[in-house]
Amino acid sequence: MADKKGKRRRTDPSSDDETHHPNKKVPKKDTIINKTLENLRSTTSAASSSKSLSLADLPISSTCREVRELDHESVQYEIELQMLKVIKSILDGNGFTFQVPSRAAANQLYIPELDRIVLKDKTSLRPYANVSTVRKATITARVLQLIHQLCLKDIHVTKRDLFYTDVKLFQDQNQSDSVLDDAACMVGCTRSSLNVIASEKGVVVGRLIFSDNGDMIDCTKMGMGGKAIPPNIHKVGDVQSDALFILLVEKDAAFIRLSEDRFYNRFPCIILTAKGQPDVATRLFLRKLKLELKLPVLALVDSDPYGLKILSVYGCGSKNMSYDSANLTTPDIKWLGIRPSDLDKYKIPEQCRLTMTDQDIKTGKEMLEEDFVKKNPKWVEELTLMVKTKQKAEIQALSAFGFQYLTQVYLPLKLQEQDWI
Amino acid sequence: MADKKGKRRRTDPSSDDETHHPNKKVPKKDTIINKTLENLRSTTSAASSSKSLSLADLPISSTCREVRELDHESVQYEIELQMLKVIKSILDGNGFTFQVPSRAAANQLYIPELDRIVLKDKTSLRPYANVSTVRKATITARVLQLIHQLCLKDIHVTKRDLFYTDVKLFQDQNQSDSVLDDAACMVGCTRSSLNVIASEKGVVVGRLIFSDNGDMIDCTKMGMGGKAIPPNIHKVGDVQSDALFILLVEKDAAFIRLSEDRFYNRFPCIILTAKGQPDVATRLFLRKLKLELKLPVLALVDSDPYGLKILSVYGCGSKNMSYDSANLTTPDIKWLGIRPSDLDKYKIPEQCRLTMTDQDIKTGKEMLEEDFVKKNPKWVEELTLMVKTKQKAEIQALSAFGFQYLTQVYLPLKLQEQDWI
Repeated sequence: MADKKGKRRRTDPSSDDETHHPNKKVPKKDTIINKTLENLRSTTSAASSSKSLSLADLPISSTCREVRELDHESVQYEIELQMLKVIKSILDGNGFTFQVPSRAAANQLYIPELDRIVLKDKTSLRPYANVSTVRKATITARVLQLIHQLCLKDIHVTKRDLFYTDVKLFQDQNQSDSVLDDAACMVGCTRSSLNVIASEKGVVVGRLIFSDNGDMIDCTKMGMGGKAIPPNIHKVGDVQSDALFILLVEKDAAFIRLSEDRFYNRFPCIILTAKGQPDVATRLFLRKLKLELKLPVLALVDSDPYGLKILSVYGCGSKNMSYDSANLTTPDIKWLGIRPSDLDKYKIPEQCRLTMTDQDIKTGKEMLEEDFVKKNPKWVEELTLMVKTKQKAEIQALSAFGFQYLTQVYLPLKLQEQDWI
Repeated sequence: MADKKGKRRRTDPSSDDETHHPNKKVPKKDTIINKTLENLRSTTSAASSSKSLSLADLPISSTCREVRELDHESVQYEIELQMLKVIKSILDGNGFTFQVPSRAAANQLYIPELDRIVLKDKTSLRPYANVSTVRKATITARVLQLIHQLCLKDIHVTKRDLFYTDVKLFQDQNQSDSVLDDAACMVGCTRSSLNVIASEKGVVVGRLIFSDNGDMIDCTKMGMGGKAIPPNIHKVGDVQSDALFILLVEKDAAFIRLSEDRFYNRFPCIILTAKGQPDVATRLFLRKLKLELKLPVLALVDSDPYGLKILSVYGCGSKNMSYDSANLTTPDIKWLGIRPSDLDKYKIPEQCRLTMTDQDIKTGKEMLEEDFVKKNPKWVEELTLMVKTKQKAEIQALSAFGFQYLTQVYLPLKLQEQDWI
């Protein structure tokens, strides 16, 4: 009896548990919605194949520096080159010294055309024969040697492992970490090319097949838990998908709802989350999907300044790894929801909205100054509304209309109305 | 050329990068080591199939309470029973009131025979007609109703979702969370039986096949990233494995090393980690593996009080969910390493050892008072040594002997010498 009731309910999304939502709108047929998504995909893929602007195409290219993905043999070669430069400097009578690109904020530049931060070409000398730099020069030599070993054996380690290989020299991990970033700039490659990887925390599920370290993974067959995103992007390949879009989710809870309801089978998509602050592995993975599949990326984040900050990290990178931005960032991410204007549009009950703290409002105002936000008038509009109303809301706030309102009403309506900016 | 060199090195574990370790011992052939592991497995499986002691077998059973796994229909039924009790109380002229088991520390009991904490049988009344309990009584009724819905539809939500279904009433999440635990005790089932799930963060890789929400997962084909452990244990089934043991790892970094080196193919095992503090999903998953496969569980944790604390959470549960301990805990976990005595035995360099803070030492001394530790003299010995030497070390400290020392020397030696306690 209970079960029969259960079945009947399940067939009727709008009466999703007792709490009925005021938003009378009911989504159209999935086939109709998917038509609009097909258009989105084709326009996106056309766009991404055309304007793939790179630093080289810009006049300032000579005065700016970006790093590339390199295979482990090229990295070995580049490191050997660096050491030859050092030897040359010794032979020239200038002594043992490294030339290291500056990663200081003063040497960083936001480039609107690329919509990301790059490094200017300022470099500094790191001589061994100088009290102030002798330690750093020694650490640099040691780190380059360790990386050379890693590439020789093509194994991957974490920053923590690297630190522990010579604690006596490095003393604390910040020192080996910062020199590691120097090394990446010197070699001119991404940090992951150095075979030093971030520990992953992201998960993916949906219409995606890829190989992880040689194993073929079918993400439609990953149950509720999904597939853990590999820590090492170099072992990811053979990416195939019949998805119409990528759904980027901020929170774990929303991801679980989507994967249990197998949302990706109603609306062909790839669903991924970094469970909060995006980690490097997840950012690299998203970027790879976007570039290879040329799919639109729609983001579902909390309606607060941090939701937008997370979007900006995926979109234009974080300042402290700006040298790597080209390889970490995913261009053209659309803000699907939860947007400040949704709170009224979807009649989110007052008690499910939270009042922004002073810190929230401060962060919100700072975000309004970010080039990344400024260049998108509609984002400015939404963020201004948020700061004005001083209200925020989490994705979970939608549960006020029933646990499955997110997957059965909110998202279908959003997609149907192409309500992304 | 580099590649050839790479190959040559790879075949020679002991010369694992320049840093050569003082520990001259080299592991025996894998086949020999696996023989000893087969013995371990058979003794473990024999033991676990015999002494599966439960609360019911003990004299105190009448005065203690434990919860069981229940399917969603039984939970519905139990909730309906609870409401009938309330109606009865009204008809008896005692008014609308719930009878709720007490989860206070005073009502908790550690039972050596079971090696876990259980609840004593103290209960308290929660009448509606009482200023001090009217809110809680109302919240209890609402939570029971929401859970009833979840079971009716057999969908799963997080605590956060549950909170947002009625923010006006719950006010803050602690209130719905604590009543949720009350509800579990009232119904007499585990929290996960209520279809309210924890967001997962654990990953698993190795010689394991299981079904997640109907999809068959082969954990030998999960690449480096591994399979994310499902948030909902009820959708996990069809567990099969040819592993000889389960390797429980505290840290992500060690997990990555083990999975990249495909350690589970040299020594047939299942490798899992919760990436730090164990979450409920990972604890339930480990327990299920242990019970169904009857495999020995060997733990690899940092050599510090928190490493041991993590072991204790897996082994005998955390106090605030003691009512659920029977279903969350995994009996008979062996402490493989890193153990305080390993620091000297494996000649971990001084600079890779860390000095314990006063807080560390305090925690260490507290752990020495825990029944869970006391009942294992060898653990007491090790912990005493730690507190005496005031030294701790992370798993990563082994990288001092080369990045692959963990997988190529340390663990094989440990297994060969059956060096677990």
